[in-house]
Amino acid sequence: MIFLKKILIFLSILPLALPQDIFDPDTFPRPLIIEINEPHLKEVQLQCTSWRVAVEANNLSPWKKIPEECGDYVRDYMTQKGYEIDLQRVCNEAGIYARSVNMSGDGKIAWIFDVDETLLSNLPYYADHGYGLEIFDSTKFDQWVEIGMAPAIESSLKLYEEVLSLGFKVILLTGRSERHRSITVDNLLQAGYRNWDKLILRSSEDHGKTATMYKSEKRSELVEEGYHILGNSGDQWSDILGSSMSKRSFKLPNPMYYIP
Amino acid sequence: MIFLKKILIFLSILPLALPQDIFDPDTFPRPLIIEINEPHLKEVQLQCTSWRVAVEANNLSPWKKIPEECGDYVRDYMTQKGYEIDLQRVCNEAGIYARSVNMSGDGKIAWIFDVDETLLSNLPYYADHGYGLEIFDSTKFDQWVEIGMAPAIESSLKLYEEVLSLGFKVILLTGRSERHRSITVDNLLQAGYRNWDKLILRSSEDHGKTATMYKSEKRSELVEEGYHILGNSGDQWSDILGSSMSKRSFKLPNPMYYIP
Repeated sequence: MIFLKKILIFLSILPLALPQDIFDPDTFPRPLIIEINEPHLKEVQLQCTSWRVAVEANNLSPWKKIPEECGDYVRDYMTQKGYEIDLQRVCNEAGIYARSVNMSGDGKIAWIFDVDETLLSNLPYYADHGYGLEIFDSTKFDQWVEIGMAPAIESSLKLYEEVLSLGFKVILLTGRSERHRSITVDNLLQAGYRNWDKLILRSSEDHGKTATMYKSEKRSELVEEGYHILGNSGDQWSDILGSSMSKRSFKLPNPMYYIP
Repeated sequence: MIFLKKILIFLSILPLALPQDIFDPDTFPRPLIIEINEPHLKEVQLQCTSWRVAVEANNLSPWKKIPEECGDYVRDYMTQKGYEIDLQRVCNEAGIYARSVNMSGDGKIAWIFDVDETLLSNLPYYADHGYGLEIFDSTKFDQWVEIGMAPAIESSLKLYEEVLSLGFKVILLTGRSERHRSITVDNLLQAGYRNWDKLILRSSEDHGKTATMYKSEKRSELVEEGYHILGNSGDQWSDILGSSMSKRSFKLPNPMYYIP
């Protein structure tokens, strides 16, 4: 029996030594090299998922780049199904909530959207910069912003249109600089966004503030102007936490960078 | 070549037809049945991970039980490595933060801990109740609480001891009822917890309030008493959000149940 087993091991390995054209991965068991690597891959998968959950649950202190060992994991998450599924889920939940809101009143019920990684995707930029493995370079990123070619995040565009059609006032609140107003407007329009009530960007006196401070101040001003902030979508916790928080907030996934 | 390929396919499948004692899963490629099932399993894994991330990021509206299709996923997460790794990560992050706090001053710097699924684990109870697949039954759960045998969450016990030794005042703030004070104290002591400053339970006037309201009110009272709440650990967002929020909060994982 042991001899038979050895012959079978040899024969099951044999296809690996044959030319590629007769090796069909859909029919044959996968090459042994993958089997050997799996325990390590599973451990990395588990640790990097745990890291990503900690990011999404706001458990980490400010970080400047993703863990070295999670480079492949984050790339795969962003470019395969994971990111897309998570975006759909959170935007779908937001839509269910939006439809449940009583819209009667003074017509000043507002939904706030962040811009980068919320309405617009900078994935083409981050694909060229290691999906978060490189420390953020504002000069290079500004060059990307100034092209004005960031595509829409489709799930957000769908939510945006629904929220508008329900009668929410849409406020765009972004950490982008006031000097990028014009290109940001062009990019948003080109990506399909329309009819926002306000687009708020960082003015010169907002530089130096954390995003949490800046966005809290702007939300407080909106409340003073009479807006009722009932929904808020952002990919950073600094879009959500602080003062004058929205009745409900939706944290879009983003394992590539952290803004305090 | 095609004939050779067919022979190799046959021989690679042959081990499946042989008695178990000559089939060594560590040496042979895994049985084909697992390969066939993988795409479905991977899809469930992906969807349930996405659901769990949405729970941890506070993106879901109140839910009463876990999705039916995630029953096996949540059981595996709780009983295999996932839960343990996530607990270690969040408690480790909390420890790093705790050590960074400037402890000088009036000696009233406080760390709040929730009890269930934060200091004490009810996993033995939930193992008997489908890990969240069953709707919460307060009568049965109370019977479990009254045994007083919930074990410590080891990562939390380690953090608890460190936080105490750093000089934080430890406040335990739980949704458990005042009538369970005595058994809760016994259980906490038996699990290794010591020297808390206060144990706050729901009194009769707190029943009917959401956990967010009840815990916010209690935090506000603590602030009025002069405590500076600089750390907060809980497995529910209702432990964390609301008024008088802690300077930093740590969301422990819990995919089994949701408390609004």
